[in-house]
This record gives sequence, C-alpha cells and structure tokens, in this order.
Amino acid sequence: MLSVVLIGTGNVSVKLQQAFSLSEEVQLLGVFGKEERKDEILPSGLKVRAISEVDEKADIIVIAVADDAITSVQKKLGASNALVVHTAGSIPMEVLAPIKRRGVFYPLQTLSADREVDFNSLPLCLECSQHEDRELLQQLAESVSASVHWINSIERERLHLAAVFTNNFVNHMICQAEKICVEYDLPKEMLHPLLDETVAKAKILGAFEAQTGPAVRGDLSVIEKHLNLLPESARQELYKTITASIQNEYESQL
Amino acid sequence: MLSVVLIGTGNVSVKLQQAFSLSEEVQLLGVFGKEERKDEILPSGLKVRAISEVDEKADIIVIAVADDAITSVQKKLGASNALVVHTAGSIPMEVLAPIKRRGVFYPLQTLSADREVDFNSLPLCLECSQHEDRELLQQLAESVSASVHWINSIERERLHLAAVFTNNFVNHMICQAEKICVEYDLPKEMLHPLLDETVAKAKILGAFEAQTGPAVRGDLSVIEKHLNLLPESARQELYKTITASIQNEYESQL
Repeated sequence: MLSVVLIGTGNVSVKLQQAFSLSEEVQLLGVFGKEERKDEILPSGLKVRAISEVDEKADIIVIAVADDAITSVQKKLGASNALVVHTAGSIPMEVLAPIKRRGVFYPLQTLSADREVDFNSLPLCLECSQHEDRELLQQLAESVSASVHWINSIERERLHLAAVFTNNFVNHMICQAEKICVEYDLPKEMLHPLLDETVAKAKILGAFEAQTGPAVRGDLSVIEKHLNLLPESARQELYKTITASIQNEYESQL
Repeated sequence: MLSVVLIGTGNVSVKLQQAFSLSEEVQLLGVFGKEERKDEILPSGLKVRAISEVDEKADIIVIAVADDAITSVQKKLGASNALVVHTAGSIPMEVLAPIKRRGVFYPLQTLSADREVDFNSLPLCLECSQHEDRELLQQLAESVSASVHWINSIERERLHLAAVFTNNFVNHMICQAEKICVEYDLPKEMLHPLLDETVAKAKILGAFEAQTGPAVRGDLSVIEKHLNLLPESARQELYKTITASIQNEYESQL
C-alpha cells in the first residue's frame, strides 16, 4: 500500500484524488491547499489543510499546483524525507531541489473537474532523481494507468510543446471554424462528423499522409476566396501563415 | 425510384457509388469518367464509360470531379434535361449554367476510398436553381443521409472555409505535433488520448470555452521555451502567429 499526499486544489489535483481513491493500492492521506473547492466532494476524512501541516509519513507527496506556484510549495515543504513529485509538463524536475528524493508525475492530458477521464489509457510521464525511487513511482503510476513512460525533463519539455499543438492549437482551429459558423448563422454541429473523421484519419494514416485541401494542392483561387471571406487582417494572417506552413511542409519533402 | 448517373472516378464518386448502391430508393445507371479505378469494384453492370455517352434518361446527374474539371464536364454534357448537380464545397452552383436544372450536392466530409463512412450522419448540403427540383434533390439526399441541409452558394463557401479550419488546419496542427515526436524520438501515440479529449471537449463546451494553455493564460516563459525548441524560423512563425491569434481572440472578449 502506497501512502500519498496531494498538494493543490485545482483540476489536476481533483482528478488525481479520484484516481487514487479508486485504486486499491493507494491510500490517500490528505489533500493540502489554499482553498476548499465547492464543486468537489473530497473522500471522507480528507480535509483540505494548510501545506505546513503536510503529513511527513507519506511515501509520496504529489504537488499538483500551477507552474509558478511549485517553487513556493517546495519552500514550504522544507527538507521532506518523502519522494516529492510535481505534475507539470514544462517545468524541469530540478525546481524541486534541494529536496533529495524528487521527481515528476506528469499526466499528458487536459483535465477538467467536470469531465470523466479514462485513467487507464492516460499517459503518465515519470522521472525521478534517485534510482531507488523508480520502482515506487512506477508502482504509483501503474496503480492508476496502463500507459506509463519514463521521460526526462528535456524530453518532457518537447512532449509538452507537442501537446500544445495537439490540444491548444487544434482547439483554436476548431474555435475559428465555430466562429465562422456563428458569424454566418450556420449550425456549427454540421462540422462535427468532419472533425471526428479528421482525427480518426490522422491517427490511422499519420497526419502527414492525411493532409488534403487547397494549401497542399496549391489551389490559389480557393485560397484567395477564403482570404476575402475573413474580415479582419489578424484572421487573414492566421490563414496565410498556416497555409504557408502546410506548403512548406510538403515542398521540403519533394 | 430515382435514377442516378455519376460522373467522376475519384474518392467522392467512389463513396457516393457505395452509398447509392446501398440505398433501395436509388438506381445507379452508370459511372462515367476518364479512368477505371483499380482499387474499386464497381457494382456489376456499371462500367466506366466516356462522358459523351452519359445516359440522358437519368433523373439526376451527379458531377463528382475535381473543382477545376467541373466546367469542362458541363460543356461535354451539353443541354441536359436531367437535374445536374456538382459536389464541390467552394464552387458556386452557377458554374453549371447554361444547364437549366442545376444544383449542388455537397457532402461536408473528407472522403477516402479506403475509409468507411457513416453516411447516415454525413451532412449533405443542397442547392438547386429550380424550385420544382427541391423535392427530387431532398429525396436523393435522404436516401443516403439523415443530415440534410439547404445551403446556398454564398453560405456553402463560408462553410467550406470553416471546413478548411476543421479538417486541413486541425490536421496540420497534429502533423506538427507528430513531427516534434519523431524528431525527438517520442512515441506519437502518446498524444492520442489528449487529441481525443481535445475534440470531445470542444464539441461539448464549444472551442471558445475549452481553450487552455500558455497563450490564453499569457505564460510568456513557457511560450519562450517553446520557441527555443522549434529549430526553423518558419515553425517559430507558425507558433507565434497562432499564439497571437489565441491572445487576440480572448482580449477582444474582455
């Protein structure tokens, strides 16, 4: 049985609380943070308490707070004897120094308090400073997911960049499409089958192979029509830059 | 029973052949086009023939060819008495003039010969020049799909622009993410759960509400780290332009 303490009361912490509570191999000793969440019922007995009261007997302390709050939590923890891990994609493990047994437990997923997550397929990216802690961290990860990966800080930063394209930038493309529908009074749900098939195809063929459209086939008359339909120069700029990027991608492969 | 002739031997034609062949309300009289496809077994008796031999007794002639070939097909058809429709998203119905009974039958989906399509949920966008033909075209659309929409040429052009963001540009974002994984020897499949959740969330919440990440929260230190990880100026430009577009989107709402 692994005893775990969670620090933080945001979405990542809420979802990890749920995952750890469901696991028979994990005992969640408590959740520590600034504020109690109204939208979340903590498992009974796990009150939100001040970080200075963190249970020193935990095997693993998981810091699930905003990126810029990790250092201040590390300072409040002082010289912990537990394995202390953070959950951030773009923050090196070393920000947890001088804690001796430090590591990372990064869930590669967008976590929202009100969305169900399939933990079993959720990729967990692990790193730790002490070789002896690998087994402990692996055990914690396997208690909630079947997709466990050892990724060092440099790799994780790159993976996080790829995640920004996959999540933030894909979402912004969908946002632009929805905006056009709203502006012209077209039902945005009409785009959903296309969106689903786009993703299914990219996953099966690979996105490089799956690319179609006016940019990759060099259809200048459609590109010009589209630019004329976009009212602001910022949106024209966005369209032009992505079109140029697609063309650049395929030209360089010829 | 509607009798239909298909012109074209590309992916759209192949998928429509399959859909019409499965429908009990449609009799496919023939497929006309330049070349026989090796990857497709035509329903028995439907040989690919020259466009000049098109069966004049068809109720509806569907031109499913590349955008820039529509006009030349229209010229070869001459003064047809059938309802003649094209299947292109960004081409006005009027390119079919002087054919009197002209229209559009635009499937809002990315169609590949080797991918199964759920026709029933596939949005079909219809338009026709003669009011009397609405029922006929509606009947053809309903014979293959439950998602039938009357969309004029101006609306269809806008919808096609939204489709470019949804399909081509979303795919390019996934392509960029995969490229980072390949470059740094990370398994690109790790991104699939994130991609699925990104799309699921955008559909449920709307993409505007679903936006997260360094751009929307103004996290300049992460943005700078990411720019340093992108080796070429073209990819930096892409990252910067999308980041600025996200920021612009949310600033203008404040």
